[in-house]
This record gives sequence, structure tokens and C-alpha cells, in this order.
Amino acid sequence: MSEHALRAEKLDAGDELAALRDRFVLDDVVYLDGNSLGALPVHVPALVDDVVRRQWGELRIRSWQESGWWTAPERIGDRIATLVGAAPGQIVVGDSTSVNVFKALVAAVRMAGEDRDEILVDATAFPSDTYIAESAARLTGRALRPVIPSDVPGVLSGRTAAVLLNHVDYRTGRLHDLPALTAAVRAAGAVSVWDLCHSAGALPVGLDEHGVDLAIGCTYKYLNGGPGSPAYLYVRTGLQDRFDSPLPGWNSHAEPFGMRPAYAPAPGALHGRVGTPDILSMLALEAALEVWDGVSMDAVRAKSLALTDFFLECVTAYAPPGTVESLTPEAHAERGSQVALRCPTAVDVMPRLIERGVVGDFRHPDLLRFGFTPLYVGFADTERAARVLGEVLG
Amino acid sequence: MSEHALRAEKLDAGDELAALRDRFVLDDVVYLDGNSLGALPVHVPALVDDVVRRQWGELRIRSWQESGWWTAPERIGDRIATLVGAAPGQIVVGDSTSVNVFKALVAAVRMAGEDRDEILVDATAFPSDTYIAESAARLTGRALRPVIPSDVPGVLSGRTAAVLLNHVDYRTGRLHDLPALTAAVRAAGAVSVWDLCHSAGALPVGLDEHGVDLAIGCTYKYLNGGPGSPAYLYVRTGLQDRFDSPLPGWNSHAEPFGMRPAYAPAPGALHGRVGTPDILSMLALEAALEVWDGVSMDAVRAKSLALTDFFLECVTAYAPPGTVESLTPEAHAERGSQVALRCPTAVDVMPRLIERGVVGDFRHPDLLRFGFTPLYVGFADTERAARVLGEVLG
Repeated sequence: MSEHALRAEKLDAGDELAALRDRFVLDDVVYLDGNSLGALPVHVPALVDDVVRRQWGELRIRSWQESGWWTAPERIGDRIATLVGAAPGQIVVGDSTSVNVFKALVAAVRMAGEDRDEILVDATAFPSDTYIAESAARLTGRALRPVIPSDVPGVLSGRTAAVLLNHVDYRTGRLHDLPALTAAVRAAGAVSVWDLCHSAGALPVGLDEHGVDLAIGCTYKYLNGGPGSPAYLYVRTGLQDRFDSPLPGWNSHAEPFGMRPAYAPAPGALHGRVGTPDILSMLALEAALEVWDGVSMDAVRAKSLALTDFFLECVTAYAPPGTVESLTPEAHAERGSQVALRCPTAVDVMPRLIERGVVGDFRHPDLLRFGFTPLYVGFADTERAARVLGEVLG
Repeated sequence: MSEHALRAEKLDAGDELAALRDRFVLDDVVYLDGNSLGALPVHVPALVDDVVRRQWGELRIRSWQESGWWTAPERIGDRIATLVGAAPGQIVVGDSTSVNVFKALVAAVRMAGEDRDEILVDATAFPSDTYIAESAARLTGRALRPVIPSDVPGVLSGRTAAVLLNHVDYRTGRLHDLPALTAAVRAAGAVSVWDLCHSAGALPVGLDEHGVDLAIGCTYKYLNGGPGSPAYLYVRTGLQDRFDSPLPGWNSHAEPFGMRPAYAPAPGALHGRVGTPDILSMLALEAALEVWDGVSMDAVRAKSLALTDFFLECVTAYAPPGTVESLTPEAHAERGSQVALRCPTAVDVMPRLIERGVVGDFRHPDLLRFGFTPLYVGFADTERAARVLGEVLG
């Protein structure tokens, strides 16, 4: 057994989260794509079957009340709140991430007031955020300015209405400094909007603690909600009265079944709802979140860093010199839960890794991306992934 | 056996759609709420279980390609197209109805051009349509004017940018004259947007035939897609190049995995997509649509009218004089697939009907609403519903 394989064995033996792996359906593949689609928790299929057969099939329309369908967006929002450091009553689940970016940015601009005419958008953001930010800017008559996150403090001004930032860079895995950037945005009198897609469920976020204004995120990566499961929107309590949604659907009405011709917003986070919630996907997500019961996000973060440290070490040991270069920051404070390796032959390498049971993903034009989900990835998996990579590159 | 019960027996015996009832999970309840949440098709649970256990659980990320997840929005759109009289390539599925109303109205206003400054909205529309239309008007700097559908032709002018109409009134069940109104809107140089929530799957719509510009609808009523299943957006071929979405998410990009910083729209109907599709709900819908294989929409319409005619006749026979008044038009050309009865004690009557196994719904302030789904409601059901109503009112 190699030195690294021995190390992996010891690290797995000392892993306090190791038993969580049994909460997921996994096979002999090393699944390092949980930052794209989280694995299936073992108890979810039975719950979904109950939702379909009994709640829909037998109770039908009665389930809106009797099965708790109507209140699912805010109930599940409160469950997610515990994972991102938010008190209850500030998160609702529903719609896609892109739709929530739109709600958040338009509402942010409206909160900032008429005299602030510029939206800053993370120039390294997932492209959809930029496309939607362009639309929000166009519809609200603001200018859009792409900025590298670290440059934001120098660019903020009395013109800045809102700042949309990605907490973790989807390409490189770089973790941005949410506390400092949020404070800077606030000091400039602007509204902060954070995209948590690549951080929620992977590391502590601390939305309330750091005074984040608005946040959005998906639930199908580290939260394991299932393919295309609904996204969420966080509006901090102090801003909820001023949250003026561009998508004021009937579910956000103060009296949704009053069928009033005039719109009147529901109080609090409910105001972020739009149309009828997508129940099958939403309740699958709710069940999936049960795997977090009793799990400490600090322990998740510690294991995540240990995994990515170990992976980088093994890659250095196994990959022929010069074949790959890590884009993931060395410093823990700047690292999310993934490793991105630049590799000129990445487009060919990833399918060969997948063939050999190591599933990561390829990102155009030359990136190998490996996501480390501390709930179900172990150190032996990590050593094997690096070893197979070394063989493929050798 | 009463005269009407005998009639019901004969009508059921001659019903060419009667066998379709076996395609649904039903019990001894008379379910007249399919215009709110359609019943569960019997084969859907097994399909959903496969999506969860095998497609998500075993194939995981590979399913985006191998299980056809990525192309589901347009594939299912083409299936719905056959039910609303549209050629392929014009409908995509995804998001809620409210979100699709927003996409359609903002895009409609943009198509109409800068000099048209007014949006007309059906004053009898489902309230969410009005709330979203207000938002679209506000964000595009247009005025919003509520108009009764029959008054639209007289109100259209060179100022009219877009007209949002409900095909069937969700309260009264009144069917509006889609061909004539669409032609009038077009003649005025404005863009028509039809909400098909209460007509798709209940009667022939003929989107292409009548030259409708844009349409949206939900899938959980007469299409039986399941609670909160995704809505759809129709953009007629001739307008697709000019469809300028206010929600240009990455799924609508010409090269979604190119991760380009600049937005470029996908061709055709794909342009109406936004974020990652909600796969569990979407594939449940796809399975549910199989019940329509071999079903003629003309036969559905004929049975629907026969059911509502018979129900009104039975209500007249059974309900004590003066206890209820029908708001549903007598004329077939003006009737959807529901009967709405005004009843001063409706709020108390509906729970008593439900207790006795007749499920309709109550709409504020005094309406008893009964939806007739020709695929699974029969004439004996209909007679029983009217008889129980008569007993409760007696």
C-alpha cells in the first residue's frame, strides 16, 4: 500500500462524519460532482412515493392543507436557514436560481433608491447571474458594471445601488470574503446580494452574523435536493418591509385566496413567493435536508478543507509534473469545497476519468473540476481519484 | 331509480371516453376539482420512482444527457403543443404560470415597440395575472388598463402594446372568443397573450389556427401534471426571433455550456427557458401526458358540454328553487368545462358536499365551483353531485 493510501486509511478512521455516507445511495464510483448534482439520500424515494401516491393520488386537493403543501416554501426555507446561519422567517424556497437573482436584484435596486444608478456584478460569477443582472439593469434603467470581487471595495461609490457576488467561484473554487465585502457594500450605502450556490452546505455562511442583505442559492448541489430542485431567497428581516418584488404572484399576496383585484404583499419572507409551488420537487428537497440533522457545519468545513488539502497533495504526488495546475487557492480562507485543475487536455481527460469510475466535470475550455462533498466523500475516495488522474495523465 | 339516474346510466353507456377513467387513481368520491388539481394517472408513481431511484440515484449527473433531462422542457412542450393546436417547436415547459406571464408580457411589450404605451389586461383574469401585469407595466414604463374581454375590441388603439386575456374565466367558467379577440388584437397591431390555464386539456384551443402570438398555461389542472407542476410558454414561430426575454437565464443561451460572459439567445422556443429545469415535477408531467395518447380533443369537448349541460339540468331538478343561480353561460360557445353556482351560503355548503363525497371548491365570496374533467368524470358522478347538492340545500 502506498504512503498516500495508508494516510487515507488513517484519515477515514478518524473522520467523525464518515458514517453519514450511509445516508446516501452510492456505488463504487468516486463521485466528485456533488457540486453539480448532489447524490440521492436513501430515504428520499419512499417519501416521494408517498407524496405521489397518497398525498396527490388519494388526498388530492386536500393536501394543500392536510399535507402541508401550502406552507412548504417557508417551512423548508427555515430548514435551509439553519445551514446558512439565518434565523427563521427570512428564507422562502421556490423558482430557479436565475428567477431568484432577478427578484433579488430588482428589489435591491428599488431599496437603494432613485439616485443610485449602477449595479455591480461579480465579473467571475456564474454566467446566468450576469445575464439576469443585465436584464435587471435594463428594466430598472441602471448601468451594469462587472467587477472582480476583490476590486469591489475600490469601485463602490454613491452611485452603487446593488452588488451581486458569488460566494464561491464556480470555476476556480475561490471563496470570496463575504464578511468584509458585505461590510464594504453596506458602508457605501448599497445593497448586497450573495449567490450561495457553491457554498451553502459546504461551509458556514453566517448570513445574519455578517449582515448580508439578500441572498439566493440553489439546492441541488451540496444540499442534495435533486435535479433542478427549487432555489431559495433570503431577505433579512430588517429589509422585508422594503422588499418590492418584480414578480408579485398570487402566492405572495397578503390574502392569496381572497382573489383581490389589488395587490397587497404578504408580510415577511413570504413576500418572495410567486406562483404555485412545485410540490414534488419541493418535498423531495425537504426530505433530503433531513440528512443534515445533527451535523455541524464547522465539522463539514474542517473535513472539506482536509479533503481538498489531501487531494492537492495526492495530485502533486501522482500527476506527472507539468500536466495539471491548480487554480484553487492554497489559503484555506480563500478556498471553497472544490479543486479546479487547469489541464490542456481536460476535454479528453475527464471522459477517461469517468470511464475509470472517477466522476468530476469538465468546464470549458481547459478545466477539470472536482467537488468534495464532506457528507459522502472520504479520504480513500480522494486518494483513488488522484491516483486514477495520475494514471490517465501518465 | 330516478329519471335523471336512468339518463345518467344511458349516457355513461354511450360515452366513448368512459374507459379513460381507468387511467386515473380514483375512489368513490365524485371529484369535481380537476380544474384545480387533476387526479393522479395510475402509471405516474412508477415513472417518478424510476426518475428518483435510477436516473438520479444511480446515473446521477449522467442523466442530464442519458435520461433526456436537458431537453425535457422542449420535448414536453411539443407534447402539450398537440393538445392546444400548435405545431412543434413553439412551446417550452418550466417555471410557474406567473413567471411565464411575466416573460410573455414584457416580451410582448418589447415586440410592440416604443410608441405603444398601454397594456390591456382582462379585468376578470385570475388575480395573479393582474399583479404580474402591473409589474410588467411598471418595469417597462407602460400604463395598465383592465378591460372586460368583450370590451377589448372597442378599447384597442394605436397605443395598445399587448393584451393579456384568460381563455376561460376561472370564476364563472365563461369561455372567451379567442379567434375573434386574437384577430382584433392583431388588427390593432398589438400582441396577444392568452392564459390557457382553464382551457388547455378541456377544449380545443387552436393556437396556430387562430394566430395567437403568445400563450401561457399551467399543467396541473386538466393536464393532470401534479401539484405545482411546471407551466409552459408558447411563442409562435413568426415571433420567436423578436422574443426578447426579461429572464434570460443560462438555459436560454445559444451555447449554455460555453459559459460565455455575453448573452446570446438560443434559437426558437428554447429562448423561453430560464434556469435549470425542475426534473422530478417535469418528468411526472411528461408521464401524466401519456393519458392523452389516442384521445380526440373534439370528443373531450363534446363530453365536457354534455356533462355540464346534464349537471345544470340535474341541479335545476334537485336544488330547491332560489337556492343557487348559475353564472356559467348557457351558450356552448361561451362555456368552458366548469359550472359556477352562486349560492349565498356557499362557504358552508361546500364543506358539507365534501363530507358527502362531492369535491368541488369554494371561491370567495359566494361561489360553488365544479370542474368537469371529461377524462375521468362520468354522468352518474354528475347526477350524484347534483343530487347531493340538492339534499344539502334542501
